[in-house]
Order: sequence, then structure tokens, then C-alpha cells
Amino acid sequence: MRLALSIEYKGTHYYGWQIQNHHKKKTIQYHIEQAISKVANENISTICAGRTDTGVHAFSQIIHFDTIKRRTDYKWVTGINTYLPEDILVNNIFHVDDTFHSRYSALNRTYRYIILNQQHSSPLLHDNVLHYKDYIDVDRMRNSIQYLEGQHDFSCFQASGCSAKSSIKVINKIIIRKVKNLIYIDIKANSFLYHMVRNIVGCLLDISIKKHKPKYIKDLILSKDRTKAGKMVLSSGLYLMRIDYPKKYNIKYKKISGLFN
Amino acid sequence: MRLALSIEYKGTHYYGWQIQNHHKKKTIQYHIEQAISKVANENISTICAGRTDTGVHAFSQIIHFDTIKRRTDYKWVTGINTYLPEDILVNNIFHVDDTFHSRYSALNRTYRYIILNQQHSSPLLHDNVLHYKDYIDVDRMRNSIQYLEGQHDFSCFQASGCSAKSSIKVINKIIIRKVKNLIYIDIKANSFLYHMVRNIVGCLLDISIKKHKPKYIKDLILSKDRTKAGKMVLSSGLYLMRIDYPKKYNIKYKKISGLFN
Repeated sequence: MRLALSIEYKGTHYYGWQIQNHHKKKTIQYHIEQAISKVANENISTICAGRTDTGVHAFSQIIHFDTIKRRTDYKWVTGINTYLPEDILVNNIFHVDDTFHSRYSALNRTYRYIILNQQHSSPLLHDNVLHYKDYIDVDRMRNSIQYLEGQHDFSCFQASGCSAKSSIKVINKIIIRKVKNLIYIDIKANSFLYHMVRNIVGCLLDISIKKHKPKYIKDLILSKDRTKAGKMVLSSGLYLMRIDYPKKYNIKYKKISGLFN
Repeated sequence: MRLALSIEYKGTHYYGWQIQNHHKKKTIQYHIEQAISKVANENISTICAGRTDTGVHAFSQIIHFDTIKRRTDYKWVTGINTYLPEDILVNNIFHVDDTFHSRYSALNRTYRYIILNQQHSSPLLHDNVLHYKDYIDVDRMRNSIQYLEGQHDFSCFQASGCSAKSSIKVINKIIIRKVKNLIYIDIKANSFLYHMVRNIVGCLLDISIKKHKPKYIKDLILSKDRTKAGKMVLSSGLYLMRIDYPKKYNIKYKKISGLFN
């Protein structure tokens, strides 16, 4: 039996999703697998849709695992949550067939980056946003979207150490919204290269403060030169928002908490 | 020379504002006084407008202190912030005369309580809200406001250990707003008793889930019985929002970060 879970977490105090030898207990995967294993009463391994990095948050990480144990949905969810720390939570469960794979079945991933654009930083939002002092011209940012959307070789935004087989990806949609002093950048793509979102946002910020023209991104992509992309932004503002799957798997999302939407 | 500061902080990791013998370094006041003393190069004591409790946050705590040292406003603010941890920040400075007293000159204080009203809790908002599972009927809550506003003896909402000389206070205004799955309760009063906001919110929640009628609050206030008020809510959802002073002191507020507004 294959089960999938939707998981929300605050990444601030973790070295990302994936279990690492040095920081085993400081990963989300470690806590999730421990908790599921306790409820299943057997050792469970999980596979996730997107391996988030140190400090990156998730509204909906999707994972799957196999088990022969039978529990009600309620028992799985409340049971697992009992064993999780307060910054990680399972908020939904899905019964899927063996053709479902959280990573390989995914059609698209959406990441959100949140920037607080005001003079002084905010202690209350420190873990949740990037603070940016200089005035951000959202329209200049938006004028770059046309060069990012579509299929491109995104090598220029790829960090070293990226394990992707190909650097050719499809960005389906970028939406940039300004709500009071917060700027939300939503990027939906078939998949992402290592640090791709944070490198793109760094580049959009350079454009917004007129360090570059909006068309700079076109030349940058064509250059395929990862040394030119500028400064990568902090992980604190980055959220894995949702993963889209073929309809047949019936993966549904709950409403997003208003504070971050 | 008397100076006043506006301070934002996330209270999660502190035992409140006031320096305590047992948890000296785990108080906001300790860090603020250490930082100001370093910039002033002399020992500085501060007085605050509202002594927030363990875990309570502030958008704008107002404090004052006296010094003969001369620094530019920029040097005071950036200097103090250099010595503060990332969950405490000075965001404004005011030059006031010796008649100003952060506590005694205050005309009104406004506190905000934020509730996340949805089935599952949210790891991303864990430090910032009260999670409440049962459906909250905001209109029922609003029907209680008429019994709270005005001058009353609020003994029934006063925690033991309260040092206030009188339990008669004036609530000027209560505003309850629902934005998606978040409920904001703003209470403005001349001053507050110990745990008064958290006890009022606890009572409003009981009314919203039909444990009591809205008029229950009227009888409760008349009873002056602190054992009847019901369960006090957590500190995680409570924010000291602003303190109003006579116009002559020219205390101004910056815009509130969009995420919490």
C-alpha cells in the first residue's frame, strides 16, 4: 500500500529536508520517518517531491511511503503529528497506487519568495522573509518575467553541486505581487535546479534597483554562465508552496494560512 | 536629556520585558539596557510603557531613559541595534522633555490578539498565533463588545499577582476582524490589568462556541469574580501594538509590517 502525505514545516531550525550524516536529527526527513515508523511499528523510508535546503520552509511538501500496515486516515495523521516537533505538521493524507512517485509523478512545483521591503528589518518576521532596504520597483521586476517564462537552459542560475541531469527546465508562470510592504514572487516550473529560485530572485532584485535592465536576464540565460547571476538571496524567504500531479492521484490542497498569503 | 525609543520584538524566546533575577539574560529589558549602555558608554536604566509577559510580542513597545551623552539619532538607533539579538529591534527614536514618562504619560495602550481558526495548526505560525480548531462565530464575539467597552471594574479578568492600584479601567474600543482564516482582536484601553487581554479573549472564545451567551460578559464583570472568567489563552497570539501619548510629545509610529496586519 502506498500512502502520500502533505507536510507543512518551518525550516528555520533544520538543515533542510534530507537526512545528512552529520546533522541527522536536524533534518525534516529524520523526524518524519521516525514519526511514521512509530505509528506503523516498522521502519519506514520516505521519498519527497522537492528536497528543500537549510532554512527553507514548506506549506506543502509531498512525500510517499510504502507499508502493509493498516491504520485509519485519522490515526495516521494524528498519530504521526503526536511524534513530530511543533515546527513540522502533517496536514493531509492520500491513498495512491504504486504508479505514484512524489518526485517523478510531479508535473510542476511552485515556490514562493517573500521580501519585506522597508527601511528597518522586522524581528517578528525575521525567520519568514528577506528584509530588503532599498526601494523595489516591482514593475521593473515584472518586465523581466517574459525572459524567464518558457523552456530555457537555466545553467546561469544553477549552483555548483546540482545533481540535475539537465539544466533545461520549463518555467510555466511567474507572478509578482506587492501587498503593503511585502513582495511575493511565485515561480511555477516543471522542476528546479539547485538554488535556482534564490538565484533568480537575487537577479530580479538587482534589476529592481536598476543595477541591470530587465532584458539583462535574457543575455544572462543565453550566457549559461553561473558566475554572472549575482548574489543568491537568503533561504528565510523561500517556501515550497505546492506540487501538481496528474488528476488521477487526487492530491488536494488545503487553504493557505492567511498570514502568508 | 530624555530619549524615548520604539522597540519591536518577538517575545517567543524571552521571559517577558522585565529583568528578573532568575532569568536576567532572557528578558528584553536586559538586552535593551546592555545595548544602550554600550552606545552611551555609561550604565543606562530604562522604563517601559507596558511590561509584556513571557512570550508576548511587541510591534511598538515605548521606553524612555535619561543620559547626558550626545549622539546623533542615527548613531543611537544603528548603534543600539548593532548590540541587539535579531529578535529585538529599535525602529524609532524621539526627543522628549523631562515631563515625559513612558508609562505615566501614556493615554492608551492597544493590544492585538491573533487567532488562527482552522482545523489543523500551522508550524509556520506556531510562535505568532493561537491555533483554535472549533469554528469561531465572529458575530457572537462582536455582540459582547458592548458590555466590555467603557469604564468598568475588570476584577474578573485580573490574574492574581496583579500590582495595579485599581481594577477600574476604561476600554475605549474593541475591533474584531476576520481575514481569511485569521481573526484579529484589537483592544484599546487606558491601561490593562495583569493577563486582562488574554482572559478577555478566552471569554470571547467561550462565547463564540456557544458555551455562553454574549451577555454573559455583563454578568461576569458585575460578579468581579476572577474564578468565573474561563481559560486564559496562550501568550503566542498577543502583541503590544501601540501606545498613545499627548500630541506634544510627538511620538509617531511607522507602518506595520503587512504580514501581521
